Amino acid sequence: MPEFLTLLPPDEARTLLLSYLSHPIPDSELIDVPASLGRIAAEDILAPHSLPDFQRSTVDGYAVRARETHGASDSLPAYLNLIGEVPMGNAPEFTVGTGECALIHTGGMIPNGADAVVMLEYTQSAHENEIELFRAVADGENVLLVGEDVTVGQVIQARGSLMRPAEIGGLMALGILKVNVVRKARVGLISTGDEVIDPGLSPRPGQVRDVNSFTLGALVEKSGGIAKLYGIISDEFDSLKQTAAKALSECDVVIITAGSSASTRDMTADVIRSLGEPGVLVHGINTRPGKPTILGACYGKAVIGLPGNPVSALVNGYLFVVPVIEKLLGALSRPKATVLARLTVNLSSQAGREDWWPVKLIGKLEADPIFGKSNLIVTLASADGLLRIPPDATGLSAGEVVEVFLI
Amino acid sequence: MPEFLTLLPPDEARTLLLSYLSHPIPDSELIDVPASLGRIAAEDILAPHSLPDFQRSTVDGYAVRARETHGASDSLPAYLNLIGEVPMGNAPEFTVGTGECALIHTGGMIPNGADAVVMLEYTQSAHENEIELFRAVADGENVLLVGEDVTVGQVIQARGSLMRPAEIGGLMALGILKVNVVRKARVGLISTGDEVIDPGLSPRPGQVRDVNSFTLGALVEKSGGIAKLYGIISDEFDSLKQTAAKALSECDVVIITAGSSASTRDMTADVIRSLGEPGVLVHGINTRPGKPTILGACYGKAVIGLPGNPVSALVNGYLFVVPVIEKLLGALSRPKATVLARLTVNLSSQAGREDWWPVKLIGKLEADPIFGKSNLIVTLASADGLLRIPPDATGLSAGEVVEVFLI
Repeated sequence: MPEFLTLLPPDEARTLLLSYLSHPIPDSELIDVPASLGRIAAEDILAPHSLPDFQRSTVDGYAVRARETHGASDSLPAYLNLIGEVPMGNAPEFTVGTGECALIHTGGMIPNGADAVVMLEYTQSAHENEIELFRAVADGENVLLVGEDVTVGQVIQARGSLMRPAEIGGLMALGILKVNVVRKARVGLISTGDEVIDPGLSPRPGQVRDVNSFTLGALVEKSGGIAKLYGIISDEFDSLKQTAAKALSECDVVIITAGSSASTRDMTADVIRSLGEPGVLVHGINTRPGKPTILGACYGKAVIGLPGNPVSALVNGYLFVVPVIEKLLGALSRPKATVLARLTVNLSSQAGREDWWPVKLIGKLEADPIFGKSNLIVTLASADGLLRIPPDATGLSAGEVVEVFLI
Repeated sequence: MPEFLTLLPPDEARTLLLSYLSHPIPDSELIDVPASLGRIAAEDILAPHSLPDFQRSTVDGYAVRARETHGASDSLPAYLNLIGEVPMGNAPEFTVGTGECALIHTGGMIPNGADAVVMLEYTQSAHENEIELFRAVADGENVLLVGEDVTVGQVIQARGSLMRPAEIGGLMALGILKVNVVRKARVGLISTGDEVIDPGLSPRPGQVRDVNSFTLGALVEKSGGIAKLYGIISDEFDSLKQTAAKALSECDVVIITAGSSASTRDMTADVIRSLGEPGVLVHGINTRPGKPTILGACYGKAVIGLPGNPVSALVNGYLFVVPVIEKLLGALSRPKATVLARLTVNLSSQAGREDWWPVKLIGKLEADPIFGKSNLIVTLASADGLLRIPPDATGLSAGEVVEVFLI
């Protein structure tokens, strides 16, 4: 019979595991910025020059000396001589002097002498080369100043930040075409269980296809890792130890999804103990699903034993594998995607235990828990997210507003 | 001066645009299921067999005939003869008869004759081959029935569903190794503006690097499309029309980011009109940023003119380009990732106009708007999400709880 000596709360278990990991992955790859979507910056990136690096107009209008518009109104317009048009993409060759203005388009370079722009809608042509202005502008009005977006030498992107469309645009705007990103975390996946077969085979009675290598592989990929599959290993200590040792030497993280039987679960713990110090950190977590989860560390690398049942394995992948990958990538903490919804039914829970319920979101506003025994993987695919029942609750009531973590 | 004849609310503008699109992309690709993460199923997928396809135990324990445990308790245990152990991955060769039980592990096949499983923790070994049971079980208790996850012929995944880890696992569990996914939407991107240069070049005074091709390219990629870049076209009607026509023939969607000047914006509208019927649907949207956005359709394909300013272009990409791609993929509607946060400051707005503010989330619970003029792309990269001020509001107050759409 399995012994769960320490049944730790999941947050505590996760913190303990993360504390045993060595530093983030030190290797980086220099890649093209447009191809860097979803990667993590490996170093602080500094602005090679200010942006904008010339004063630009933010509107279509007339570049002026602000003080010459003071007092201008609909009833008392100011009149300025039009001396030219600012060419797009070029520095204007003229200077705006006293009593003068120049036509300028959004993004055009403010000519020497001018310090503000009056919007086109507050002007009209009076005579040839004379413009009537109905509004006063302040110095700097409708002008984007040099360095207003970023100044030379400023950190424009911190180590650990995620490359999103805006980050990619920011680097391209500064002419930075290559970026150092953290190498993807390599996660070795091992399935065990004498009843587990390759999905390409037809199961005999009593056999099931391997699911965990693929659900966890997809989760790893989604989280910034590369999954390396070590196949299905029989419930035999030496072959599991040999494969796990190989995976540990080739990967940053090793995940063993246990065969479902208690004896296999215990074997996973023994294998983790045999791989290196300190070995098993947590055997048994006070959560449902996922009580038999094993968290271990061997010489600074995480080795995790997940339950064989596919729903438990995937839910606990979200709880423990994703944070390990994020820590290895050195990813800065980011808000988790959630949706608030009203629970459709009462859900009971056991005080002291943290429960995670797959829920379907109905009409965006209602969270409907998906019932069923815990290894229904196809049923899980109908879930939009996971609902947490905290350990200090004995359940949640129908009608309560709950936070659903999107998956 | 540009004329905005119709300044439509963004929701109305989007609905109008989507109504002019032809049906979703009809082409699909047959790919390996483990490589399908993030793709959209091109057809309903039916279960080739039930799952599970044999009765399985959900616990470690003893397979029994339920009625023989009735009345069993700590003080009055039931006694059954142990006739064997169910081998993992094989059909047991024995039948559980009256007065008998068999050791079974989680996932093991229920032997003939048995109809329930008593958990190991409620049993103990009495004599050799005799088991003492302290709990009664009901028929079917701790047993996963045939078809409990899915029955043969059932739709396990609907057309338009997103391939996530659980979907991938569900297909693999059923031995479905290939899946038909919708071809990615091809989105042609054209940047215009005489002041815009390739990011690899050093800008002269008055020039700026192309940003929109790359921010929008990344957004397209993130949303299930493939971005095809047509480069930077000068502010000249014929060359823009020629490039746009080529893009329209090669892509499902065309996006023209206008040079910043009003004349270029008007040229974009003229080009869209010249490309095909019905041409421009909306010229001017009651939103900030994004007022000059142009929505058009030419023979069933969306042609969108976005403002040249990078922040407007990207925000309006989220508002209009992403929904177009989702419609083309036939993607089933999914909840948007949001976070609730407390606004740090008062934000004023114009009644009738919908505003989208980039905000930074502080400590996960506070939403801090990012101020600054609208074309600060590096500044935008510090935003975690976008905050909507609805058209019927004149602003939001500091301390209000707001919904932030994560970007």
